Amino acid sequence: MAVNETVEITGHLIDSGALSMVLSDIREYGGDFVVDRFDVGYESGDPSHVVITVSADDDEALQRLLMRIQTRGANQLDPGEAETAVVEQDGVFPDRFYSTTNLATRVRLGGRWVEVANPEMDCGLVVEGEGAALRVVTVPMVDVRADMRVVVGSSGIKVAPPLEVKSGDVFGFMESDVSSEKPQAVLVRQVADGMRRAKEEGGKVLWVGGPGVVHTGAAPAMVALVDAGFVDILFAGNALATHDIEASLYGTSLGIDLDQGHGVQHGHEHHIRAINTIRKAGSITAAVEQGVLTGGIMHALVKHGKQFVLVGSVRDDGPLPDVYTDVIDGQRAMRAALPGVSFCVMVATTLHSVATGNILPASIPLVCVDINPASVTKLADRGSSQARGIVTDVGLFIEQLAMELVPHYGRQAG
Amino acid sequence: MAVNETVEITGHLIDSGALSMVLSDIREYGGDFVVDRFDVGYESGDPSHVVITVSADDDEALQRLLMRIQTRGANQLDPGEAETAVVEQDGVFPDRFYSTTNLATRVRLGGRWVEVANPEMDCGLVVEGEGAALRVVTVPMVDVRADMRVVVGSSGIKVAPPLEVKSGDVFGFMESDVSSEKPQAVLVRQVADGMRRAKEEGGKVLWVGGPGVVHTGAAPAMVALVDAGFVDILFAGNALATHDIEASLYGTSLGIDLDQGHGVQHGHEHHIRAINTIRKAGSITAAVEQGVLTGGIMHALVKHGKQFVLVGSVRDDGPLPDVYTDVIDGQRAMRAALPGVSFCVMVATTLHSVATGNILPASIPLVCVDINPASVTKLADRGSSQARGIVTDVGLFIEQLAMELVPHYGRQAG
Amino acid sequence: MAVNETVEITGHLIDSGALSMVLSDIREYGGDFVVDRFDVGYESGDPSHVVITVSADDDEALQRLLMRIQTRGANQLDPGEAETAVVEQDGVFPDRFYSTTNLATRVRLGGRWVEVANPEMDCGLVVEGEGAALRVVTVPMVDVRADMRVVVGSSGIKVAPPLEVKSGDVFGFMESDVSSEKPQAVLVRQVADGMRRAKEEGGKVLWVGGPGVVHTGAAPAMVALVDAGFVDILFAGNALATHDIEASLYGTSLGIDLDQGHGVQHGHEHHIRAINTIRKAGSITAAVEQGVLTGGIMHALVKHGKQFVLVGSVRDDGPLPDVYTDVIDGQRAMRAALPGVSFCVMVATTLHSVATGNILPASIPLVCVDINPASVTKLADRGSSQARGIVTDVGLFIEQLAMELVPHYGRQAG
Amino acid sequence: MAVNETVEITGHLIDSGALSMVLSDIREYGGDFVVDRFDVGYESGDPSHVVITVSADDDEALQRLLMRIQTRGANQLDPGEAETAVVEQDGVFPDRFYSTTNLATRVRLGGRWVEVANPEMDCGLVVEGEGAALRVVTVPMVDVRADMRVVVGSSGIKVAPPLEVKSGDVFGFMESDVSSEKPQAVLVRQVADGMRRAKEEGGKVLWVGGPGVVHTGAAPAMVALVDAGFVDILFAGNALATHDIEASLYGTSLGIDLDQGHGVQHGHEHHIRAINTIRKAGSITAAVEQGVLTGGIMHALVKHGKQFVLVGSVRDDGPLPDVYTDVIDGQRAMRAALPGVSFCVMVATTLHSVATGNILPASIPLVCVDINPASVTKLADRGSSQARGIVTDVGLFIEQLAMELVPHYGRQAG
Repeated sequence: MAVNETVEITGHLIDSGALSMVLSDIREYGGDFVVDRFDVGYESGDPSHVVITVSADDDEALQRLLMRIQTRGANQLDPGEAETAVVEQDGVFPDRFYSTTNLATRVRLGGRWVEVANPEMDCGLVVEGEGAALRVVTVPMVDVRADMRVVVGSSGIKVAPPLEVKSGDVFGFMESDVSSEKPQAVLVRQVADGMRRAKEEGGKVLWVGGPGVVHTGAAPAMVALVDAGFVDILFAGNALATHDIEASLYGTSLGIDLDQGHGVQHGHEHHIRAINTIRKAGSITAAVEQGVLTGGIMHALVKHGKQFVLVGSVRDDGPLPDVYTDVIDGQRAMRAALPGVSFCVMVATTLHSVATGNILPASIPLVCVDINPASVTKLADRGSSQARGIVTDVGLFIEQLAMELVPHYGRQAG
Repeated sequence: MAVNETVEITGHLIDSGALSMVLSDIREYGGDFVVDRFDVGYESGDPSHVVITVSADDDEALQRLLMRIQTRGANQLDPGEAETAVVEQDGVFPDRFYSTTNLATRVRLGGRWVEVANPEMDCGLVVEGEGAALRVVTVPMVDVRADMRVVVGSSGIKVAPPLEVKSGDVFGFMESDVSSEKPQAVLVRQVADGMRRAKEEGGKVLWVGGPGVVHTGAAPAMVALVDAGFVDILFAGNALATHDIEASLYGTSLGIDLDQGHGVQHGHEHHIRAINTIRKAGSITAAVEQGVLTGGIMHALVKHGKQFVLVGSVRDDGPLPDVYTDVIDGQRAMRAALPGVSFCVMVATTLHSVATGNILPASIPLVCVDINPASVTKLADRGSSQARGIVTDVGLFIEQLAMELVPHYGRQAG
Repeated sequence: MAVNETVEITGHLIDSGALSMVLSDIREYGGDFVVDRFDVGYESGDPSHVVITVSADDDEALQRLLMRIQTRGANQLDPGEAETAVVEQDGVFPDRFYSTTNLATRVRLGGRWVEVANPEMDCGLVVEGEGAALRVVTVPMVDVRADMRVVVGSSGIKVAPPLEVKSGDVFGFMESDVSSEKPQAVLVRQVADGMRRAKEEGGKVLWVGGPGVVHTGAAPAMVALVDAGFVDILFAGNALATHDIEASLYGTSLGIDLDQGHGVQHGHEHHIRAINTIRKAGSITAAVEQGVLTGGIMHALVKHGKQFVLVGSVRDDGPLPDVYTDVIDGQRAMRAALPGVSFCVMVATTLHSVATGNILPASIPLVCVDINPASVTKLADRGSSQARGIVTDVGLFIEQLAMELVPHYGRQAG
Repeated sequence: MAVNETVEITGHLIDSGALSMVLSDIREYGGDFVVDRFDVGYESGDPSHVVITVSADDDEALQRLLMRIQTRGANQLDPGEAETAVVEQDGVFPDRFYSTTNLATRVRLGGRWVEVANPEMDCGLVVEGEGAALRVVTVPMVDVRADMRVVVGSSGIKVAPPLEVKSGDVFGFMESDVSSEKPQAVLVRQVADGMRRAKEEGGKVLWVGGPGVVHTGAAPAMVALVDAGFVDILFAGNALATHDIEASLYGTSLGIDLDQGHGVQHGHEHHIRAINTIRKAGSITAAVEQGVLTGGIMHALVKHGKQFVLVGSVRDDGPLPDVYTDVIDGQRAMRAALPGVSFCVMVATTLHSVATGNILPASIPLVCVDINPASVTKLADRGSSQARGIVTDVGLFIEQLAMELVPHYGRQAG
């Protein structure tokens, strides 16, 4: 017999497409719906409010459907109390565990709403402490331990709606569709505005980068941005750091002679020798202190005391001694670096972009820049609904961004 | 029974890969070869000289193979006299017609070598006049007429080897492989150098452009380049001109609001109304003169008396009154504009790039810029061996090119 | 002072995203709106009905906005009578001409609704005859003549809503987003079902193809589909036909030896010689009749008396004698071939796909197949809202389609 | 003062382009050369032999240049004895360490040539034992330990030339250039031939796969290939296994309903719940034994006792309990699985393809299949010169491969 539940959702439901996505989810999960109430925003700019009764074949299907549409901001009208279950096995959630969204989330326990500390998608909610000390934290599957209390089912949970893209806002310009046919200079200027605003408000700017940053010749512009304070944290892999260091030590990066533009294809042994040099020094920071590494992006980060988290991948040579070879340890280090971040830009990497999107709250503005449209699309498809994409040349993009943000940058070069 | 012919080829055969391509062609046409002589360039920089005897199953196969490898610069050692046949039917070559390359070509007639006036690929060679007035011209199939004399077979023809990419040369940087991972700022600077040199030497700069020039917001930079004299001729289609004019008349281009970056997707009726406006004026030039069109790329070209050739395609709306709706007429107009051109840059169009590559002598340096690697590859695959590709964002590329070439450009904007 | 008009729209407005697009258009055209009434479909499957008052700064802006949202199916609540103006100049519409959509359209004249004969986008509506003989036809700009009566403004016009994608329908599977990560075998089967149904209902299947059909080795499968009656009309350019004929005459296509897979890159003179051969024969049909052309796709079409329309482009060599060198003549020939078409598949061509999309009524199901996602996206962006895209290998797609549709096809080969 | 060394290289140097690449490397490393001797293969099919004296500014530059050109098969004419140095620090090679190629390699020690056990690129050569028990093994940087003896400089080393692509060979069809415009059905057939031959000769077939295998609906065809014995080992990441298991448990994969083709975009919680289920069971094998997992690719591998190595990445959710979270441990497990492999096919993954290319000897035939040309290009650029690429739809490719290799496969479905 069919079971049902009533949900509500508020916001610019029609023009944002949010309601359309909720109804689409319901059908795709095999459920059904009746619209109980629809208070439309009568004037443009007014939010709408809609109440829908959702039904499914059985309770398990219903619970999962409710979790699903909660990723769009649809909350139960009468969510009741959250239900919890005790973890029986390290690293394994109870069967009916509530799978989190990256939206701001509250959980109703003992009659009051508790704000979840650190929203992140595809995790569980662990309830710790009691009474006034009670708190709810997001815990990834791998870190859950036996005897922890975990929220199960979909009752007692409310999420804030996804970031709304307001007209005239910093991101008003970037429609959800990804295109290389946009006025690029305008986009650069608006990303610069977003970074400036983040810094003015005391936030940190997080960069996520791939080796293309170095290959496209953007390292000098990137160094200028680090010097000027627009790079607080860098998430990357072994490749970006290696090619940057290789370029500093040998003037090449995977075989591209960056001054003349002559290509040394593959470059073969330069990069492995660069890694060996840093391993000998002990770490990137040690190599800077010993005067071995004297230029490039990594040098600039060390010089200014900025943070970087390098996480390895199966294709890595070496790797550099600073690289987390265990990806779970790497994820933990990335999570630990997030507090204070209020703007994120992802450049020329699909792997690290998706990894960062996975752990980033939906409330942090996020721009993804790549010459390949597929990289940009993939991020949004993986649930980072706040992601805005720019399909452009990474080298020229960073060059122009530096010209916007760093006084006198490029004036002598031009 | 197998027939054979001896050919020679001179140049940087090994490091340029030219010899490898000749041998590969021979095998692919089902022929065979023996290397008779190989004078290698003993030091780097020295040219090599090789003599090969090529064989095939019958004379027809041999003749066609010889024509084929002549596109690589391989000439018959003893070419003898050219043979001609009379055209019997308008628009149809004799069966054994010599199919041209885009290399500088000489034809031996009556014991002396006659330089071909206008090298172009996939055409025939028509012999006109007699005695001292004898000349050989390249004629496309569609323009050949009954009773013309056309060269047949492969005897009596010599070509100059393809443009060699010398180290340190303006194009030394751009290897034959297409890649988006190149130091883009260096590439921009070197294209700027190539254009400057062409202008200093009194040559014309030919641009071939697609509507992406307008969509990416590069029109102001392009106007600056026209104003500064770096655009002598523009080959394009109905789309570039329409979107440029639409942007001037309505501030949109296929729905992109270029100042704010807000997208008016499709734009639907703006472009068709822009076309109607120009048709009413009579022509783009008339619209400028009547004060109807007051800005944009087309306006700048008219203002400076620069030439443009717009050729239509089957997907065109309208079209604008200046567009050649007959593509053969369009090709003729493009050919007529080529004399004096000494540098060519192709931006954001596969259709018009290939069309221009078809008629452009191999001696004219050619840069192709597109965000899509396939566009760049296709040009080289179609026989424009001199083409060098840059995979980058067209908007930022033109912006940076203007900053390199136009004094003070972008200084106030930055 | 602001002017306004009330419009209504009916259908699956929320889940199809149609309403969201209408509101988005209003904002992008600088207008404003108030929702007067919103009758929501209370159960899934029920249509919704919404009434909106749209306002703009002046009447001209309002008229154009009304035309714009009519492309989404939004009609004026009280459209009144259509207004007409007389054309003053050949090939030029009156300034305020109504720019058409590709939706089924009715025009109110003399108090009654007249159905427009041939919906096509970006054209004008010409009123002919009087009284009972009065009719309204869609006329492209280039064909309008002085003294014709053309509809101006947005009054007196109603359109049918765009084709709705119903769940479980033949196209239910293909969401609006384009992706290469879809279960391809299922998609092939569903396209086969669509074609079978079209044939059963007496409709014609229109194919629009690029040369990739030949390069990917799909010609034998395509011939099998022609033989089996699943190709009634082919729209293409010079390239598809030339490479198909080249493959038949020489066993190559732009240098690909199709049996062995050995590449004869470029192929250079094969294609130009193939064209010369057909020009000598007089036409493709003549070449078949003379026994010159004995295989391939074009031969199969001629043998079965099927229609083909080849329209030229500026990059064409030759061209073949059957090619329309004037693109406007080509568009006219394509239009003339449309009556009776009830299914359209576009394969491996952006140019001809967009050209066909421009003239095809929105009521005809349309599938676009290409290995390049951009080709598929471009079609939808240009207004062919009914287009569904499949990003896949064209060669394997046609091969599998033939296995679905043609009994015994591929059984011996497998 | 300049130093020099004489090298020789044998093979199809001209038509393979190998000599051109050696000369190009010399220039790019800032060296110079004189050709001492050039014995050309006078007939097609004959190998050539060339002797070149290479010079560089100093000994270090020369040594590195010699290592570089050895990756093309250029050996020192008089290589002398190999020089070794003792490792001082765990995980760090001596400064002048010889950086390996993936070619078959011999090292001259104590007057005799010792074959290197396991060729792999970018590693060091460790000398173990003495006298008759002396052996040389390839050791990655991370595994080198203090007091090991490592080869330094470029003396005393010979490599076999890279795999030659012979005409008519299994890979004769696949030119080095990557293209989507190839007759795909022929390519499928030839890959099938390569696999059949590998199995007949007692070798193992290694598959490297990404999640696209599941998304494109190819899992049933893949299962048929496992059942028929054409998949001996699978290298993949968390994603392929998770989506395969998700599809078995829930009938979805990242939201694609694989029977109907309806998309459940993102799918959100299905995949995380699938991972939790397997973690609860303990491992994929345990899940199969417990009857929890009853279908799909992973199930088939377990059922037939086939090996799989899953290596994690920073973007992983979960991960599955079988995934190596430490990428260095993962690389070790991949290396351990290589013995016996004689054919490798890489499908829909750049990350794992490059990782496998890094450790695979150049003597093992390697086919890379992806819809994205960049994935295929990247592999060759990273040094896997034997890689041949097919740009096609992964789903249809595997489907057709199963039809070639598995009797009766697809007959009932057609």
